[in-house]
Amino acid sequence: MYGSHVHWAAARARRFYGQITEEGDGEDSETEDWRLGDKQSPERGASRRRSEDGLAGMSTDGTVLEHALPESDRGLAQHHGVPGNASVEMEPEGEPFGQYDDFHTIDWQRDLARDRMRHRYIVKKRQTGFFDLVRQFHDAWSGWLCVLLVGIVAGGVAGVIDIGARWMEDMRFGICPEAFWLNKDQCCWSSNETFFEGDNCSQWYSWPEVLGAQHDSAGGYVLAYLCYVVWALLLGLLAVRLVRTFAPYACGSGIPEIKTILSGFIIRGYLGKWTLLIKSVCMMLAVSAGLSLGKEGPLVHVACCIGNIIAYMFPKYGRNEAKKREILSASAAAGVSVAFGAPIGGVLFSLEEASYYFPLKTLWRSFFCALISAFILNSINPFGNEHSVLFYVHHERPWIFFELLPFIFLGVLGGVIGAAFIRSNIFWCRFRKTSRLGQYPTTEVVAVTLATALLAFPNPYSRMPSSELINVLFNDCGPSEGIDLCDYKRNFSSMSQAIETSEAGPGVYTALWQLAIVFVFKFLVTIFTFGMKIPAGLFIPSMVLGATMGRIVGVGMEQLAINYPNWWVFSSECTAGENCITSGLYATVGAAAVLGGVTRMTVSLVVIMVELTGSVSYIVPVMAAVMAAKWVGDALGREGIYDAHIYLNGYPFLDSKEEFDHTSLAADVMEPRNNVPFSVITQNSMTVSEVESMLKETEHNGFPVVVSKESQYLVGFVLRRDLNLALAGARRDGVPGQSLCLFTAVPTGQWSGPPPLQLRRILDLAPITITDQTPLETVIDMFRKLGLRQTLVTHNGRLLGIITKKDVLRHLKHLEVEDLEQVPFH
Amino acid sequence: MYGSHVHWAAARARRFYGQITEEGDGEDSETEDWRLGDKQSPERGASRRRSEDGLAGMSTDGTVLEHALPESDRGLAQHHGVPGNASVEMEPEGEPFGQYDDFHTIDWQRDLARDRMRHRYIVKKRQTGFFDLVRQFHDAWSGWLCVLLVGIVAGGVAGVIDIGARWMEDMRFGICPEAFWLNKDQCCWSSNETFFEGDNCSQWYSWPEVLGAQHDSAGGYVLAYLCYVVWALLLGLLAVRLVRTFAPYACGSGIPEIKTILSGFIIRGYLGKWTLLIKSVCMMLAVSAGLSLGKEGPLVHVACCIGNIIAYMFPKYGRNEAKKREILSASAAAGVSVAFGAPIGGVLFSLEEASYYFPLKTLWRSFFCALISAFILNSINPFGNEHSVLFYVHHERPWIFFELLPFIFLGVLGGVIGAAFIRSNIFWCRFRKTSRLGQYPTTEVVAVTLATALLAFPNPYSRMPSSELINVLFNDCGPSEGIDLCDYKRNFSSMSQAIETSEAGPGVYTALWQLAIVFVFKFLVTIFTFGMKIPAGLFIPSMVLGATMGRIVGVGMEQLAINYPNWWVFSSECTAGENCITSGLYATVGAAAVLGGVTRMTVSLVVIMVELTGSVSYIVPVMAAVMAAKWVGDALGREGIYDAHIYLNGYPFLDSKEEFDHTSLAADVMEPRNNVPFSVITQNSMTVSEVESMLKETEHNGFPVVVSKESQYLVGFVLRRDLNLALAGARRDGVPGQSLCLFTAVPTGQWSGPPPLQLRRILDLAPITITDQTPLETVIDMFRKLGLRQTLVTHNGRLLGIITKKDVLRHLKHLEVEDLEQVPFH
Repeated sequence: MYGSHVHWAAARARRFYGQITEEGDGEDSETEDWRLGDKQSPERGASRRRSEDGLAGMSTDGTVLEHALPESDRGLAQHHGVPGNASVEMEPEGEPFGQYDDFHTIDWQRDLARDRMRHRYIVKKRQTGFFDLVRQFHDAWSGWLCVLLVGIVAGGVAGVIDIGARWMEDMRFGICPEAFWLNKDQCCWSSNETFFEGDNCSQWYSWPEVLGAQHDSAGGYVLAYLCYVVWALLLGLLAVRLVRTFAPYACGSGIPEIKTILSGFIIRGYLGKWTLLIKSVCMMLAVSAGLSLGKEGPLVHVACCIGNIIAYMFPKYGRNEAKKREILSASAAAGVSVAFGAPIGGVLFSLEEASYYFPLKTLWRSFFCALISAFILNSINPFGNEHSVLFYVHHERPWIFFELLPFIFLGVLGGVIGAAFIRSNIFWCRFRKTSRLGQYPTTEVVAVTLATALLAFPNPYSRMPSSELINVLFNDCGPSEGIDLCDYKRNFSSMSQAIETSEAGPGVYTALWQLAIVFVFKFLVTIFTFGMKIPAGLFIPSMVLGATMGRIVGVGMEQLAINYPNWWVFSSECTAGENCITSGLYATVGAAAVLGGVTRMTVSLVVIMVELTGSVSYIVPVMAAVMAAKWVGDALGREGIYDAHIYLNGYPFLDSKEEFDHTSLAADVMEPRNNVPFSVITQNSMTVSEVESMLKETEHNGFPVVVSKESQYLVGFVLRRDLNLALAGARRDGVPGQSLCLFTAVPTGQWSGPPPLQLRRILDLAPITITDQTPLETVIDMFRKLGLRQTLVTHNGRLLGIITKKDVLRHLKHLEVEDLEQVPFH
Repeated sequence: MYGSHVHWAAARARRFYGQITEEGDGEDSETEDWRLGDKQSPERGASRRRSEDGLAGMSTDGTVLEHALPESDRGLAQHHGVPGNASVEMEPEGEPFGQYDDFHTIDWQRDLARDRMRHRYIVKKRQTGFFDLVRQFHDAWSGWLCVLLVGIVAGGVAGVIDIGARWMEDMRFGICPEAFWLNKDQCCWSSNETFFEGDNCSQWYSWPEVLGAQHDSAGGYVLAYLCYVVWALLLGLLAVRLVRTFAPYACGSGIPEIKTILSGFIIRGYLGKWTLLIKSVCMMLAVSAGLSLGKEGPLVHVACCIGNIIAYMFPKYGRNEAKKREILSASAAAGVSVAFGAPIGGVLFSLEEASYYFPLKTLWRSFFCALISAFILNSINPFGNEHSVLFYVHHERPWIFFELLPFIFLGVLGGVIGAAFIRSNIFWCRFRKTSRLGQYPTTEVVAVTLATALLAFPNPYSRMPSSELINVLFNDCGPSEGIDLCDYKRNFSSMSQAIETSEAGPGVYTALWQLAIVFVFKFLVTIFTFGMKIPAGLFIPSMVLGATMGRIVGVGMEQLAINYPNWWVFSSECTAGENCITSGLYATVGAAAVLGGVTRMTVSLVVIMVELTGSVSYIVPVMAAVMAAKWVGDALGREGIYDAHIYLNGYPFLDSKEEFDHTSLAADVMEPRNNVPFSVITQNSMTVSEVESMLKETEHNGFPVVVSKESQYLVGFVLRRDLNLALAGARRDGVPGQSLCLFTAVPTGQWSGPPPLQLRRILDLAPITITDQTPLETVIDMFRKLGLRQTLVTHNGRLLGIITKKDVLRHLKHLEVEDLEQVPFH
């Protein structure tokens, strides 16, 4: 059965832009004339003028169609168990102005053609008056205005989220009684005391202190433990209940779905305002609950929601799914930009990872959007420091060439950890989907939160917020750092200078053990956390894993250099007793490596890390590690975590990066095969009743039109929706069932029966066709680059069948199962 | 006449990879079998297995074809008056292993299909032995190895060029007698004296001093002037003679041609080793001659030459034009990377400006290549400082929000200047092409060099090398700067501190006048310089213009703030007498603005400027200026300088950024029109003699094959080259002229005459087709995204005509002339 999951092509460049219909004079005759204009003129030279004339008389039926198409597509997107009509609840105003149904694939070429027509119309009208001139300027600027607004709002929302999350995180430990809305840092700033990180200032009261217990007594410890766990449970429970009740789509990181949406799939309500609101709130809650998750991935989702909502203000984008994706690409860039304070990295992320169709105009706008959002966030200054980045890192020493070896080693480890994580996480998510566990999401979240909180508290490194831990690990030990990790045997006489000697004290070894435990703990708990029904990003947990691993290796290298300064690799750079190894840099490189192993990002990851560290000096180490991680990861398991989740959820995503090494031809992929009858319409020999009964019998979304049943020469393609509307209209006008449906330009002969029904105006005369001998790679290339929904297969001009995006995906899946052996490196 | 400039498609995925033919067993029968395999099987299921079997028996004729095709294409590329066969001299070993002739367009789909076949072959052979396994690994790695080598060599060459140019630049002023191979800086380093820029150390002798005159006497000045002019003339003359004699392609910036080549055009010898050598040497000479040109654009060309030469070592890339362009894209990135020390900017430049077809895999490799080259250059350390960038800039103060206004003003100026420059330069270049001036390139260079040297010397700012001038303008005045521009009224008691007061002294005003003169002088002289027959980049002259302009505006703003500190825009940030405006930042922003106006680069330019200044703090000002420059520039003249030169030289470049707003259909563009006869071959009714005479009578590069003359249903497409070969072979084997040429799978009937000649094996059964009603935008999209050479136009399965890339370009040109009114902003 090929029909049920086929998305038929639209009649290209014909039905477009409902918005300007209001100004159309609405005369039916002229409308008809326009509809004929571009398509029907047999003389080629005149067609241009005529279709432009026709534009003035556009009519209203472009957007009113909404038929209950077969919803078998939903079977493909078993999205987190969300019922197929959940989106209706979430988008009460969701009037279907798009031409697509939920869970359908869009036709880029058609949408872009609609936009070009709209544009031409506006340009043409410009001469008619001042208002239309303004209108044209507004239209030309609306893209920029839209991304400007997206940038401003995304920056603002990110600032609020950052501030809120910080405050709630600190609330687990204590409170600022004088001003409860301040977090610990702000509370202590107002005190004018100098205080070191990890210490308390006199203004800030930990919960035991508030409750009257001694801060460092056993009772105080138990009380603090208790408060920590209870807070975590409360926040976690609240988060999952909010998600379950108001916005089921707000769970997860959102990046797999964003990738799918950007590739041209419709998921209604996924980028709606409820999702935005609930995800923003629950991100704060989930992060503050101490769960092993980050808010960076969800921020991309939140930014895309903002982009989607703001796009609705600009009909150019809001009413055209293909154009809207340009705004969404820019929003994704803004999301990463505010998540890390890395605008360039954000744009590259959007280009490399998220986006599918990324024209260069979009690149420039995305950059603008990312920059504005970063600028706004920077002005809000949620991190309370002068740097706009999440983790400001500053290393003094340059790295030495020999260190590339441990960096690459970290990369290899990162690749292994990434691949292991993906496998375990996918295994667990599949188990959740297939077992009864999936029916108790609230219980699951509460259980994981409880376990995380109970296990995290005793260890100081897992107790502190993840972002703070990363900060500690990334940075070198200053001379006054009080934590174990910095317990070096120092020359205390020169307190103000940089550390002179770096031999590790006992505290460092304790810290290393604790870090090792944190590493194992975070690895295990993240597997269970990612995929639960709360907003959960993977960037921060991956970075924690990598930074922990990197710091351990870094301290090891450091001590090696201290103890064997004369070994040839160190001898040129290191002098005895002086530190020549920056262990913080190893943490940075390790974080990049694990992130690379998990997400398989490349350029964008390196650029994000460079922007994070604020220095290009360490770009080579980061690049070496990311490269090693990518290669090792790809060798162990082909997909990154996002692609794995796309696959797991069955989204129709045709990867634009993958290369296919098969010798299939179009004929192997097309439907129908094996002599299944193929529903086609003939151009001048079927009656209205015959077409109507065919519409009833089949579920296809469109039908090819051929010269005759015998010859099968392809004439064009007609959409079920258009056909339905035209036939219903004709019936209303009293056209009898015996009338012939005529798709030819001029009636060819005399009609014995009633006058024929002229339907050429709904016929797409320019469907994309290929021959049956076309290699599958070329077919895939056409699907990806032209954004097709389907292509017709011909042989010597005769129609043989049809290939849809899902036919291609199914065939690829089939081939994949067939030969699992992979080429080692791409 | 459509035939003479049509590039016919190749038989896709059929003739491939000459390299592996050596291992083919070479049996003719099996070869035939393979050639039939993939294409001839009527049963679809079996085709895959069969074609893979057939792969083992590949034969040798894939690469030996070299027919003298009609060279009418050359008419389109009247490249700088270079004779059409110049490349032959320059590439003596240039055996034509590509399947394309000079000045032809490549067919991406076909080349990529060839590569996939080659890849499949290697993967399949892997099981047969250890050697083949190694081979496969080599194949998988060769892309990375290739870009690694390109990066290393490009970094090395750039280092040598930088060092050489610096030395020769200083040679205009004096010499280091103790070690003449040292430039001034190096000479003075060895002296251990502290010396300030612009001063002389005792080791360095200016020419007057060498010749015995007083350094600061009138005679000394005249002597220095004379030496300067003579040196400049000598170097300029040498440069132009070298270019004229050895490598005519080494002139200009090369970026327009690189863009054209990357878009899929063949210019033999343009990236050859002679071009590399001569361009590298002449870049140094031309820069040292004091001409108003830079070596940054030519460095991109040089890097691409390196990429091209190294690609030949890897048959995967060297023998496949489409794959080779992946390496060239990476090389272009490396070129910018070493030119500015900006690897990320380099990749974005390659993506945004240079490349046409840029898969994401290429992005990652380009980044690697750019990074390696920057790393190597950094290790060579040609600038003699710890920063790897060309102009290291460090500003102390943050910018204030109000300053966005002057920054945008600078952007507007930059756009105006850019548009004016492009117009004037194109006007002059067109004059050169059409007048007798073009016949005296040497005289022209000498004259411009003489004028430049004579006018540049008296003004200290135009006398110093451009890169030094930019450095001076970009940086703030330190407390000890001795030049006029830094003649502020200082509080000399606090020499070691930052400048306390910034009221300008008389020297500053003198300097501003001199800078204004430099601005006018450089603007005029660059118009005449760019386009001469020497290597000449535009980055540096544009930056000089912008930096001069920016610094003037900056000093103006600075004095405004000093004198009116209580004006509301300054009052929040500035206190009386203290400097709150960074005039150096204005120079940076101005440089970005003019560069943006001239090149119309966007993201890559901003990123390059950010990498240059080494700080993301000023990204917003730079972005604002670049954006304003781009918009104003686009409003004044649609094309950037590179596109304007592409247009001027008539290269067949289909811009991937532009949008077209016309309602043309495929039928308006296709050839033949107006009842011109269309040469087609029928599948089973033409004799060998008929085909031969058709080949003689026409110049087309290929012919569509149809079912019959009457029905014109399209079967496939056959290349002239393949047909020639097959017929010649058949004639050699004694096939008579009366034999039928048979393109069908199975003979359909009895033959009365001699046995027919089976030609289906050379038939491409999967040509790309469109219908006559396809909108031109869709056609252009297909050309751009699929990299087509041509597409066949059908109507109801019948062949109507053909559209080539050049038909599309001609049509667009035609429409452009027709309606010149443009939309204000894209």
